[in-house]
Amino acid sequence: MKTLGIDTSNQVMSVALTDGTELVLEKTVNIKRNHSVQLMPAIEELVSEAGWKPKDIERVVVARGPGSYTGVRIGVTVAKTLAYSLNAELVGLSSLHILAGNGERVPDSFIVPVFDARRGNIYTGLYKYENTGFSAVENDTHISAESWAAYLSTLEGTVQLVGQDAARHFKTFKSKLGDRLITLPSSRHYPRASVAIELGQYHQPEPAHLFEPEYLKRAEAEQNWMDAHPEHAQGGGWIEKL
Amino acid sequence: MKTLGIDTSNQVMSVALTDGTELVLEKTVNIKRNHSVQLMPAIEELVSEAGWKPKDIERVVVARGPGSYTGVRIGVTVAKTLAYSLNAELVGLSSLHILAGNGERVPDSFIVPVFDARRGNIYTGLYKYENTGFSAVENDTHISAESWAAYLSTLEGTVQLVGQDAARHFKTFKSKLGDRLITLPSSRHYPRASVAIELGQYHQPEPAHLFEPEYLKRAEAEQNWMDAHPEHAQGGGWIEKL
Repeated sequence: MKTLGIDTSNQVMSVALTDGTELVLEKTVNIKRNHSVQLMPAIEELVSEAGWKPKDIERVVVARGPGSYTGVRIGVTVAKTLAYSLNAELVGLSSLHILAGNGERVPDSFIVPVFDARRGNIYTGLYKYENTGFSAVENDTHISAESWAAYLSTLEGTVQLVGQDAARHFKTFKSKLGDRLITLPSSRHYPRASVAIELGQYHQPEPAHLFEPEYLKRAEAEQNWMDAHPEHAQGGGWIEKL
Repeated sequence: MKTLGIDTSNQVMSVALTDGTELVLEKTVNIKRNHSVQLMPAIEELVSEAGWKPKDIERVVVARGPGSYTGVRIGVTVAKTLAYSLNAELVGLSSLHILAGNGERVPDSFIVPVFDARRGNIYTGLYKYENTGFSAVENDTHISAESWAAYLSTLEGTVQLVGQDAARHFKTFKSKLGDRLITLPSSRHYPRASVAIELGQYHQPEPAHLFEPEYLKRAEAEQNWMDAHPEHAQGGGWIEKL
């Protein structure tokens, strides 16, 4: 099955094509710039270089967040549009799960992907590799690095921090975890669209028109509005209310 | 230090740019085609996309073999030429070592990179990750898969086969190693130029004009000539003798 993988949920843009589980092409770019300008040309370039036509794409796997609002929105919109127009399957995966896929697959070791979320906060999760496979132990969450490190210190086993932003919070985790903290080589800290595709094999496709990003946290403007309108705290999108 | 990484030693072509240990761009192509036509355009594309000038490149890290004679020769020639003309450092790494860099960094586990070498033979090596770092336990070698599997069966610990060609020899290893054989996810079987750069940090640069590929095995034509001219068996290149 010819598959396109996309992760633009943070600074890195990674795009890959695979045929079944076999890699065809992958491009990973870690340059601060506008994913909205770069993503479609990158997809076109890879598809053309592989000698594919767009209609050859049978499945699209995309990082659905959390991460940068703009980055997530662009990746998800492009993935939905392609899946719809090409009648391809659409699979969404947590951006944190994709990053966790770079961890060492060792028993008794937790994989903790980290995206910085400003003001001492992070988007993070808790993943573990067992003989039975690779799975989330806790739901992805938005939390202070301090609290997350304190929680991890109550668990047993080593902890692998993954992600470019992990370095920024290293001291916080080190102070709580000490020698239980494992450092991964630098090349493992970047999300890879080929890893997204690989993990996506075990996920069910979703209808493109119902597919939603997963931000984990409200945008600041949205949160401000919610604070000012407590009567709408339960359910309902803020946009509909305006 | 701005670094260019190149691995064209087998079917995959991987090119990466990093700034220190930080990834800037990586492109990995797994399509049967001519590296000699594709490598320079890929380098130019990445350098331009990164907003670099060629003279910004301070270090070139290249897979020096073993692998396809043509692929190794192209990668090494381009790397030597760039290092010479840009006055950049040149670092060479075993292609098997680079592949081994994709393995799980676990104690008590051997990482065994495999390139098919036809007629039941493989290029392979034995790598291990210890707390002190990542190192070759045995020299890279050209050997029958059968013999190598028999040798591995005398060791203690799990064995991670790495490489696209590993699947072709899986049964041979499985029959000798049984449950000690660990299967890596598919995205780990492709060489990554960013991993080459990472491992190359610990290697000394070499003078470009003395830098040689490492084929591990003579080309067939060379071997035929050696067989026909046993008087030259000790030392000396066959080409010089002709």
